[in-house]
Amino acid sequence: MSESVVPVNLADKLSQFSELWSQKKVAVLNDYEVKLAKLKGEFVWHSHEDTDELFLVISGRLTIQLRDTDVVLEPGELFVVPRGVEHCPVADEETAIMLFEPAGTLNTGDAGGPMTRPPETIS
Amino acid sequence: MSESVVPVNLADKLSQFSELWSQKKVAVLNDYEVKLAKLKGEFVWHSHEDTDELFLVISGRLTIQLRDTDVVLEPGELFVVPRGVEHCPVADEETAIMLFEPAGTLNTGDAGGPMTRPPETIS
Repeated sequence: MSESVVPVNLADKLSQFSELWSQKKVAVLNDYEVKLAKLKGEFVWHSHEDTDELFLVISGRLTIQLRDTDVVLEPGELFVVPRGVEHCPVADEETAIMLFEPAGTLNTGDAGGPMTRPPETIS
Repeated sequence: MSESVVPVNLADKLSQFSELWSQKKVAVLNDYEVKLAKLKGEFVWHSHEDTDELFLVISGRLTIQLRDTDVVLEPGELFVVPRGVEHCPVADEETAIMLFEPAGTLNTGDAGGPMTRPPETIS
């Protein structure tokens, strides 16, 4: 059986890293990527001019702050931030999420700054 | 708060339908769709010439038969069937999945036939 037919186990992948705010690429679909991340605390306000961004909470609890409201995601809930919409994720407890967006989408979008990191691949 | 900022709760969406092999669109990301489906039994062999297809198992157990091997997915596991690769999903027990693929991707791909259904939207 070739390596390509082994499924991606999300819990296994999450057990392989502990860094916060660092996206880990676990699958590719056409020119899109599935990424995992662990979050705690507040990120930076930013937007993505060219793409929507999907957040799915696996464990914990994520608040996606928008300029006019907050969206609170519990495990098993997802939300798509539309392109161009400023948002700032915040998590009071450690929270694991799955992201789905085009390859090359930077975590900090148009904001840049010290929390900018390209996604890493985990085996 | 506008309707667009309510998150999608996957369990809630799954509770809203019982049909098997009928894809329900629950979110849109650019020109891609997030869909849910309930499966039991065997589908039809098919492929998608123009796109990869992502399967994530939420509950139950899904076997994606490929021509040379089977990929077995438990809850919390995902697999991307590459474009052009023939596959046939089969589930011994009722299984709930999330699909991610470009809008307009038909469930039966190049095979057609009586199980072909466009995705429906659930509120």
